[in-house]
Amino acid sequence: MLEDQQVSAGVGVPAARAARCATTDLFSVVLDLLREVGYDRMTIDAVAARAHVSKATIYRRWDGKAELVVAALSDRQVGVLNPPDTGSLRGDLLELLRATAAICVADCDLMQALTFAMRTSPELERLVRHQVLPAGRVASTAVLVRAAARGEIPPEAGERDLFHDLAPALLMSRLVAHGLPADDAFLTQVVDQVLIPVLTYRQDRPSQA
Amino acid sequence: MLEDQQVSAGVGVPAARAARCATTDLFSVVLDLLREVGYDRMTIDAVAARAHVSKATIYRRWDGKAELVVAALSDRQVGVLNPPDTGSLRGDLLELLRATAAICVADCDLMQALTFAMRTSPELERLVRHQVLPAGRVASTAVLVRAAARGEIPPEAGERDLFHDLAPALLMSRLVAHGLPADDAFLTQVVDQVLIPVLTYRQDRPSQA
Repeated sequence: MLEDQQVSAGVGVPAARAARCATTDLFSVVLDLLREVGYDRMTIDAVAARAHVSKATIYRRWDGKAELVVAALSDRQVGVLNPPDTGSLRGDLLELLRATAAICVADCDLMQALTFAMRTSPELERLVRHQVLPAGRVASTAVLVRAAARGEIPPEAGERDLFHDLAPALLMSRLVAHGLPADDAFLTQVVDQVLIPVLTYRQDRPSQA
Repeated sequence: MLEDQQVSAGVGVPAARAARCATTDLFSVVLDLLREVGYDRMTIDAVAARAHVSKATIYRRWDGKAELVVAALSDRQVGVLNPPDTGSLRGDLLELLRATAAICVADCDLMQALTFAMRTSPELERLVRHQVLPAGRVASTAVLVRAAARGEIPPEAGERDLFHDLAPALLMSRLVAHGLPADDAFLTQVVDQVLIPVLTYRQDRPSQA
C-alpha cells in the first residue's frame, strides 16, 4: 500500500486512477491464484501471465512473492473493513463484524493455507505479522475512537490490544472449528455478549467477586 | 473414553489399571504419529506396530482411524484440563488458561494439521465437532458452576456458549497469527480484560451507550 501510494503520488489523477485499477486487478489475480494453487506453488510468472503485465513491472514495486501477497491482503483488509459511522458503538461493531465475517467466510481456506505457508516462509510470516494484521486493526481502531469521543466507552478501553483479536478469533473458531455459519444471530451475540462487555468494563469498579 | 470405561467396567482393579495404562500408551502413540506424519499418512498398521498391539485389538474398540484419533484427543483434553478448585473465579480461570495454553503450545502444529485434515475427512470432522470440542468444555463448565454457586457471576453467564470458545480462540490467535508467547502476563490479560468482564456483565444493567 505504501509503495502503491508512493508510485501514484507523482502522476495526474486519470493516470493515478488507471494505476489504481491496474493494481486492484493485479491483487485480484494474486488472491485468485493463492486460492487455486496455494502460496508455495504460486509463482510471479503465473501472476504476470494472468494479469497481462511483465514480471519487471511487478518486481519494480515488490521485492518478491511474499511482499506481493502481503500487499494484496493488506489492500483488501483496508478496503473491505471500512464500515460506516452508524452513530452508536453497537451499530458500528455490528457493521464491522459483518465486514470481517464476509472476509472470513470468503477466504477461510485461503487464511488457513497462508497460516500453513507462514511456517515455512519466515519472510511471509514477518510481513503478515507486521503489515496484514495491523491493517486489520485500522477499522476497529476507528470504531473505538468514535465510541470514546461519544463517551460510550472509557478512554483506556481502546488501548487494550486484545480487543482487536476478539472478533477475528471468534469468527475463525466459529467457521473452522465448529463449522457453523457466521450469521447475524451469531454476530449479534458476539457484539452483545463479548465485545460490549469487554469495552464497557471498568477495572476500578467494585467486582462481583 | 466411553468405550474405555465400558471395557474396563467388568474387570478387576489391577486388570482395569493395566488396561488403562495400555490405552494411555496407545493414545500417546497415536498423538506421536499424528505429529510425525499427519492424519492422512497415519495408518492403523503403524499405530499397532509401534504400540505393540494387534490391529484386531484396536478394531475391537474403535471403528477406524478417525474414531481412534478422536478418542486420543478427547482423552487428553479431559485429562489435562482438570484445574484445581482455587476458591475464586479469577484463580480458577487462570489455572484453566494455563492448562489450555500448555495444550495449545505443545500441539499447535497438530491442531492446525487436524483442522486441515477435517476438510477432506467428513468422519473426522463430525467426530471432532461432536466429541473433542465438547470434551474441552467440561473443565470450563465446572469453573462456571462453582463461580455461580459462590455468587461471583450471574447464573445465566454459564449458559452463554460463546464463553467456552474465547480462551482457546484467543490462544490460537496469539500463537498462530501473532507468533507471540502465551505467557502468564498474556493469560492474566485474557482473564482480567476479557473473561471476567464477559462473565460479570449484566445485560439488564443500564448501558453506558
